[in-house]
Amino acid sequence: MQQSIQEYMKTIGQQARAASQLLSAASTKSKNDALQTIHDALITHKADILTANQADMEKGRASQLDAALLDRLELTEARFNGMLEGLKDVIALKDPIGEITDLAYRPTGIQLGKMRVPLGVVGMIYESRPNVTLEAASLALKSGNAIILRGGSEALASNQALAHVIQQALNAVNFPAAAVQVIETADRAAVGELITLTEYVDVIIPRGGKGLIQRITNEARIPVIKHLDGNCHIFVEAQADIAKALPVILNAKTHRYGVCNAMETLLVDQAIAEDFLPQVKAIYAEKQIELRGCAETVRILGSDIVPATEDDWYTEYLGPILAVKVVQDMDEAIHHINHYGSHHTDAILTENFTLAHSFLARVDSSSVVINASTRFADGFEYGLGAEIGISTDKIHARGPVGLEGLTSQKWIVFGHGEIRQ
Amino acid sequence: MQQSIQEYMKTIGQQARAASQLLSAASTKSKNDALQTIHDALITHKADILTANQADMEKGRASQLDAALLDRLELTEARFNGMLEGLKDVIALKDPIGEITDLAYRPTGIQLGKMRVPLGVVGMIYESRPNVTLEAASLALKSGNAIILRGGSEALASNQALAHVIQQALNAVNFPAAAVQVIETADRAAVGELITLTEYVDVIIPRGGKGLIQRITNEARIPVIKHLDGNCHIFVEAQADIAKALPVILNAKTHRYGVCNAMETLLVDQAIAEDFLPQVKAIYAEKQIELRGCAETVRILGSDIVPATEDDWYTEYLGPILAVKVVQDMDEAIHHINHYGSHHTDAILTENFTLAHSFLARVDSSSVVINASTRFADGFEYGLGAEIGISTDKIHARGPVGLEGLTSQKWIVFGHGEIRQ
Repeated sequence: MQQSIQEYMKTIGQQARAASQLLSAASTKSKNDALQTIHDALITHKADILTANQADMEKGRASQLDAALLDRLELTEARFNGMLEGLKDVIALKDPIGEITDLAYRPTGIQLGKMRVPLGVVGMIYESRPNVTLEAASLALKSGNAIILRGGSEALASNQALAHVIQQALNAVNFPAAAVQVIETADRAAVGELITLTEYVDVIIPRGGKGLIQRITNEARIPVIKHLDGNCHIFVEAQADIAKALPVILNAKTHRYGVCNAMETLLVDQAIAEDFLPQVKAIYAEKQIELRGCAETVRILGSDIVPATEDDWYTEYLGPILAVKVVQDMDEAIHHINHYGSHHTDAILTENFTLAHSFLARVDSSSVVINASTRFADGFEYGLGAEIGISTDKIHARGPVGLEGLTSQKWIVFGHGEIRQ
Repeated sequence: MQQSIQEYMKTIGQQARAASQLLSAASTKSKNDALQTIHDALITHKADILTANQADMEKGRASQLDAALLDRLELTEARFNGMLEGLKDVIALKDPIGEITDLAYRPTGIQLGKMRVPLGVVGMIYESRPNVTLEAASLALKSGNAIILRGGSEALASNQALAHVIQQALNAVNFPAAAVQVIETADRAAVGELITLTEYVDVIIPRGGKGLIQRITNEARIPVIKHLDGNCHIFVEAQADIAKALPVILNAKTHRYGVCNAMETLLVDQAIAEDFLPQVKAIYAEKQIELRGCAETVRILGSDIVPATEDDWYTEYLGPILAVKVVQDMDEAIHHINHYGSHHTDAILTENFTLAHSFLARVDSSSVVINASTRFADGFEYGLGAEIGISTDKIHARGPVGLEGLTSQKWIVFGHGEIRQ
């Protein structure tokens, strides 16, 4: 590359900003037409994209990437079709932009309300999953934002091929091609530049390992919607309905292991521990889940249970391991969750109305669940249509982030010549 | 101080976090009782507070602070009473915490909704105005947040006296005193520590000069709700009603000069410039406003008009100066506003429905106004009850920030034993 990374990224940023100004005023129909044109172009150019992906795969195999990474990298026939279906889903979503709410008269005579508008330019940093490229691009377009995409370097050819098709389609419908840009260098310095382009980028959404996200949060000069870990809890309270509780805790731990909304620690009220824990042991034994218990759990279940260390309470296992703790009461459970948890998704199982509502108010997590599995906490289950990430922050967007997380509201005033007294 | 600044600030942060966990579940009644107790204690201890303020004033005069700063620093009788009234207003505000919205069934059987919750711990950095101490503390308490206050060092004795009374009152009603803490050192390093206490502080709200705010934004590791400048525009479109337009532009420039929602640049459609600009000149001449015009403005109004430079379009005068530019059409006006403006508050004056709505959608500012003065853009005029700041950011809070800006929404799920399929 002739230019410096700094110049290259500044150009990308300027082009994105200019594109976002055009996009912000685009009508719903024109945005949907653009997305449909992209959809059709992807079908037409499917072979090119799959060829580019195969090049990435060969390079990946040659450099001995691990099997899990290669799996995420591959655009199979099924994944390609899944991408197209996801795009149709985004077309079908309600356009959030332009929505005016709370329009009401003030005593001064002005009419005051709020209007939903795009954030502007989104910078997305993610792992080597080419399907995320299309997902993120389509959500950004639908919400009137320009997007700058920085996928894993292993997926560069795939992402370039996708961006090429997207940009051609945007050109065909007179949309600015720079609305969707892929950073076309594997140089890691590009990320450092992207997260400090305060003038041209409005929000950074990182996806990936904890180390990467922490680094981005530390170095970014732009607001970050981030997702750190999902250390989720279920507290089985003394008045829980055990017949409901057993399927729920089984589902929350074993439905899928590598997901952020899986349960990692089970908290059990001491009043029911003697009866309940042996049933817990039995259902997990069938699934070969390793239990790591507090001293009381070990006393009840026997010495074949691994004693939990302080570290276990902090750990997101993402695998067939579950920490188990007996607590004195709900207060201790809530204290444990707020202290050791990651403020992602935490649940209580109880039939007691007052305790359920108190748990709801006091647990400081992006999703608080009563009498259901933690596994429901995601964008599709919540009906957001699609999800650009799950935020463990409290500012701006919390929990699953869909289209609305890519928007903001401005104040609007309709007047009739009013002046301030 | 025996401890290092780092240890001192960490302790403050830990105490604030612990207090915030208790506060977040406090009932509306108990929060209002606490605020009323503070109100009464302020009346009882008025003399102590005013004595402390006089000590600050004497120190300020001795170190030759400028008159404007001394004015802001002084707690006069009227200001003290104003503080008390403001506190009563906050008591009367609706409690945003615990509000549940959008609770609806999903096809899976779970009932999904959102619950409004406190952010947690607010770090407030502000200029030497002791009345802000009480205002910020009361808004934080009402919204269930703990607050760490760092006022200008010139106001330290006043702020300590206020915090002492507030903390005593909190103790009296069994609220954690650490819910409201004043940083009791003039050491500037305390600010650097405060804005990087990622574990204990959830949001930073700075108020003050642009330099300070820029520094905080650059160095903070915590989300910042910031207010940079207010370079506000009014565009008088060709179909404006001139009889309405003249009072509005006079009000927007001359109602108060030192405020962020005053108009700083007037944009005039070329189609009406020849007729309209002489009237503009006449109304501002009476108020001795200096006009700085583009070449066309100077041509029309004569050579006694100061030619505007490129810098003028960027400038927030905060004084009796107004930049004036003739534009070809609304497109040029919008481009000028989005390019030179500060995304604070911008207005169009027109009777044309389609142009008005297009301006509304395309101007990227926290308040967009049709046919009214820009001066309406503040928390009191918008009915927020009180205002902790005005945000020029797009993330989280935009425009005037009241109680709601100190809250966030978490997802809540009511289930009946549902598991994910």
